[in-house]
Amino acid sequence: MDLHTITSPSFLKELNNEQLVELSEDIRRFLIENLSKTGGHIGPNLGVVELTLALHKVFDSPDDKLIWDVGHQSYVHKILTGRASQFDTLRQFKGLCGFPKRNESDHDVWETGHSSTSLSAAMGMAAARDIKKAKNHVIPIIGDGALTGGMAFEALNHIGHEGTDMIVILNDNEMSIAPNVGAMHSVLGRMRTAGKYNKVKDDLEYLIKKVPAVGGKLASTAERVKDSLKYLLVSGMFFEELGFTYLGPIDGHDLEDLEENLKYAKKTKGPVLLHVVTKKGKGFLPAETDTVGTWHGTGPYKMETGDLVKSSSTAPSWSGLIAETVRKLAREDERIVAITPAMPVGSKLVGFASEFPDRFYDVGIAEQHAMTMAAGLATQDMKPFLAIYSTFLQRAYDQVIHDVCRQNLNVFIGIDRAGLVGADGETHQGVFDVAFLRNLPNMVVMMPKDENEGQHMVKTAIEYNDGPIALRYPRGNGLGVPMDSSLKTLPIGSWEVLQRGTDAVILTFGTTIPMALHAAEELRAGGINAEVVNARFIKPMDTEMLHSIFGRKVPVITLEEAVLQGGFGSGVLEFAEENEYTGAIVHRLGIPDQFIEHGDVAELMDEIHLNSDEVVRVAKKLVSAQKAESNVL
Amino acid sequence: MDLHTITSPSFLKELNNEQLVELSEDIRRFLIENLSKTGGHIGPNLGVVELTLALHKVFDSPDDKLIWDVGHQSYVHKILTGRASQFDTLRQFKGLCGFPKRNESDHDVWETGHSSTSLSAAMGMAAARDIKKAKNHVIPIIGDGALTGGMAFEALNHIGHEGTDMIVILNDNEMSIAPNVGAMHSVLGRMRTAGKYNKVKDDLEYLIKKVPAVGGKLASTAERVKDSLKYLLVSGMFFEELGFTYLGPIDGHDLEDLEENLKYAKKTKGPVLLHVVTKKGKGFLPAETDTVGTWHGTGPYKMETGDLVKSSSTAPSWSGLIAETVRKLAREDERIVAITPAMPVGSKLVGFASEFPDRFYDVGIAEQHAMTMAAGLATQDMKPFLAIYSTFLQRAYDQVIHDVCRQNLNVFIGIDRAGLVGADGETHQGVFDVAFLRNLPNMVVMMPKDENEGQHMVKTAIEYNDGPIALRYPRGNGLGVPMDSSLKTLPIGSWEVLQRGTDAVILTFGTTIPMALHAAEELRAGGINAEVVNARFIKPMDTEMLHSIFGRKVPVITLEEAVLQGGFGSGVLEFAEENEYTGAIVHRLGIPDQFIEHGDVAELMDEIHLNSDEVVRVAKKLVSAQKAESNVL
Repeated sequence: MDLHTITSPSFLKELNNEQLVELSEDIRRFLIENLSKTGGHIGPNLGVVELTLALHKVFDSPDDKLIWDVGHQSYVHKILTGRASQFDTLRQFKGLCGFPKRNESDHDVWETGHSSTSLSAAMGMAAARDIKKAKNHVIPIIGDGALTGGMAFEALNHIGHEGTDMIVILNDNEMSIAPNVGAMHSVLGRMRTAGKYNKVKDDLEYLIKKVPAVGGKLASTAERVKDSLKYLLVSGMFFEELGFTYLGPIDGHDLEDLEENLKYAKKTKGPVLLHVVTKKGKGFLPAETDTVGTWHGTGPYKMETGDLVKSSSTAPSWSGLIAETVRKLAREDERIVAITPAMPVGSKLVGFASEFPDRFYDVGIAEQHAMTMAAGLATQDMKPFLAIYSTFLQRAYDQVIHDVCRQNLNVFIGIDRAGLVGADGETHQGVFDVAFLRNLPNMVVMMPKDENEGQHMVKTAIEYNDGPIALRYPRGNGLGVPMDSSLKTLPIGSWEVLQRGTDAVILTFGTTIPMALHAAEELRAGGINAEVVNARFIKPMDTEMLHSIFGRKVPVITLEEAVLQGGFGSGVLEFAEENEYTGAIVHRLGIPDQFIEHGDVAELMDEIHLNSDEVVRVAKKLVSAQKAESNVL
Repeated sequence: MDLHTITSPSFLKELNNEQLVELSEDIRRFLIENLSKTGGHIGPNLGVVELTLALHKVFDSPDDKLIWDVGHQSYVHKILTGRASQFDTLRQFKGLCGFPKRNESDHDVWETGHSSTSLSAAMGMAAARDIKKAKNHVIPIIGDGALTGGMAFEALNHIGHEGTDMIVILNDNEMSIAPNVGAMHSVLGRMRTAGKYNKVKDDLEYLIKKVPAVGGKLASTAERVKDSLKYLLVSGMFFEELGFTYLGPIDGHDLEDLEENLKYAKKTKGPVLLHVVTKKGKGFLPAETDTVGTWHGTGPYKMETGDLVKSSSTAPSWSGLIAETVRKLAREDERIVAITPAMPVGSKLVGFASEFPDRFYDVGIAEQHAMTMAAGLATQDMKPFLAIYSTFLQRAYDQVIHDVCRQNLNVFIGIDRAGLVGADGETHQGVFDVAFLRNLPNMVVMMPKDENEGQHMVKTAIEYNDGPIALRYPRGNGLGVPMDSSLKTLPIGSWEVLQRGTDAVILTFGTTIPMALHAAEELRAGGINAEVVNARFIKPMDTEMLHSIFGRKVPVITLEEAVLQGGFGSGVLEFAEENEYTGAIVHRLGIPDQFIEHGDVAELMDEIHLNSDEVVRVAKKLVSAQKAESNVL
């Protein structure tokens, strides 16, 4: 059928199995074709075509609440809820979001992006339903990877305790973004091999009810015998122990089986966990046979061959540069241990892992554990390097404060994807870390101007022995600068003047340095000599240089790809205040007090006026205002 | 024996059971007597006397690493490692810390305060040991309550997966701070009733090994039969499923049994979980019979009667005032739901819980889940009130950003214990929240000047429909002001002039308002008229009033019991910069860039020069400097 004609999922109720199978093929074709042009999360979505069809057939969205954990697997849901025609704008500026978005559709009842939130959200929605005495169903759909996130367990524990009516769909594709780790994975593996048993289970429950009640010691023994029998037949004891009725595992590509089980779950009281086994990338060979996670989310590709359209940059990726430099240093320093919370591919730690398998830990989607494990290593004089995306570092904030900074431990945090990330949008922008790390005692935060300085900062971080040190680096590729062959250590808190100037000073770091240099060039053409400083240490700042700058009484512009509130620029204001530079002219440029949606980074920067033109405009204004004032005096 | 003579735990190796029992009695007497004078965590420590003795007898600290989760149960450990003589200074300024502290003793290998970190720290230490090919043991001791924290599960999952050598002591006292919640609690309950079985288990393992190997389908059936048998006899299947060898449950007050099991665990390869059942408050009747958590941690008490020494304040406690006002409003507003992460007593929500059992959720030690569950409720037009201590809010930071602020949901966060908390010290000071919330879009943050304004702020928060709103309130009691009988709504972002003045303006909020008023009084005696403003909205600020203040060109002093970096004062600097009040004189007072240890709050404030004298000193300096400058011009 023409998917563009769909306005609501209600038409599914009338379709028979054959028609649904046909529709699933149409959807797969649509996804493979459209995503070949826009890129996107192809693997996860091809895996849930039948599951999404069955969910929308059996339940009544939006009264029944479908909650997509992580949310990158919501494309089929978007198609079935009337958004097929927007797929050519997927993940683009002002286009269709790659995650559920409440302002896109009433069917998107919960927004995600980060993992493991769906069960808690579902508990909130189910509690609201019960208080209101409403009758709707609440159905979180969570992957096996997301289940390793601690907050998912917190929710399972609470939901099981309350006995709340809810149908948890465990979408078990045996891998999340990369192959899964964790004992939980083995638990699911054992369940998968156990086969179907719903009918057997019903019989068993009947038998169990017939065991006569007895008191005291004997009663508990009888209980144990019951439990043991149950364990023999029911594969999902882990969930049953937590108070869930476990159903499955079932084939997530068998529409009839899905429908039957969903209907059964719908009738079951209390929390149900339906274990659905799916195949990521199903129906598109390159994605289906992917074992490392390449096809989890991609840019555009050739549909026929499955060849990814290569990035035009020849410069090394930031993740690769940092990870490989750590690897190089690890050859000479046995204290270096690398940790990733489920991002070995994204953080380019695969090389490190294969060279130093005993000093590499992929801990699963478990940022809190990752950070505190790193702290534990540091107490034993090791040098842990934790590569973590800026946005996911938010998950480990208390661990940074309570375990790392407070104990002043030598943990090296590699903050990957710092700054705007583009297509992933609001949930993934790495724009808060400067503000939320700068207020922590003992923390050092730095960001390099280019990949050559980046490699020196890795060396600097490893050599640093006075506490935690964070190295921010952006998504994407470096600038392609020449690389020094030997690594050096930068003095902590040292800035660098990139270009001398007497009329104004631009203080900036990382990705906005080229912007500042470009603005300075344009200003020079207009007769204004702006100094550009590489403020590579965000904390501590170069106080000597700051004294020199404020002593010159020229306007100071701070520029950062991070939130303005409490950010680097505020740090400069704080310095001026603490040192009584009354009358100093400072103007801060950065990300305003709003969430930044998805789109091309350059477009987003223009949208929020964080660009070279704005730097030029502000510099001109400040310089001319100052000159006018000097003339008056 | 005289506990003051102990310098190292090594003497325990020579003691026989009878001597150990005698020592345990000496320790109990010492604790009950000393804590009656200083206060402290009496319940948890009386519960672990025998466990701590057995651990120090069987293992060799500090080579073997004892890691105390939460850490408030480390008093016996402190006595055995030579710190008995410091107990008269417990939790006092410059005195013995109530938690493990690395600078106090080599035996304190890991600092805690927040719950659920021990397993991750242990994994880090065990990984370091294995990389170094050392042989020491790593022994985290974690309570059943702490086990519900998500990060503990993340660690269990990872440790089980790696199969790392480690002995986890599950100190199961059937309650953490308050009675436990969560399905995990029932799981442990079932284990407790199952009795001892180590010997049986050995036999079973032998039998299982004799089951002949078969291939294919049959093999997995045989595996399941084995598992089922195991389940019948082994009570700790939950942990066994995750890859741990489960031992127990054993009586945590039986020294011989403890010693035998610890020795067995020491010989066992891979991760072991030893389930020890203890009685909180053991040996002190009032604490032993406590069912609500009164004797978890107390102030001084009468040893003979167990009567707590009453606080001299007659004003309502802040927690009580806020919780009871929420309760009052809940009588007329069915949308109000209260949530606590395991602090029903501390947050004084017991009254709400008994009046509205269907609208109250104690989710266990699960801050992440609590926050996102609140967000889920808010999507369904409910009015969730989440009471959470400032320091524990750090655990839910990503949930505040990603789920609450980003979706702009009407979650009412009651930030309890905001500011310095005193005796609990470094790990519990609530001083970061102003900085880490102020940088988040959509967030409203307020703090009342007294309990009367506090009750109006509750009303304000409930009436607010434009997104998240946080109400900070300190530990302890209000000021004892008269209370309005009817509640009113404050305009969002409105400040209040408490005292007019023309020479300087002091902007402050919450607990530092009395300090500012006191300083203003002293200044007036010296001929300086300082204005005092109740800056009750930290975000958004009262921009109209700020324009008026900066327009007057008088010195502005900001004063806050929160960290200076990125704090309220920085917000004022940002306002001045954004609005081009060049030349404005602002001086920020607050908590400097360091962690603040334990002690009486007033002493701590003096130590960091955050007191009325400092406000006076700064105001005088600024006013005279400005006058001098005016004279020059």
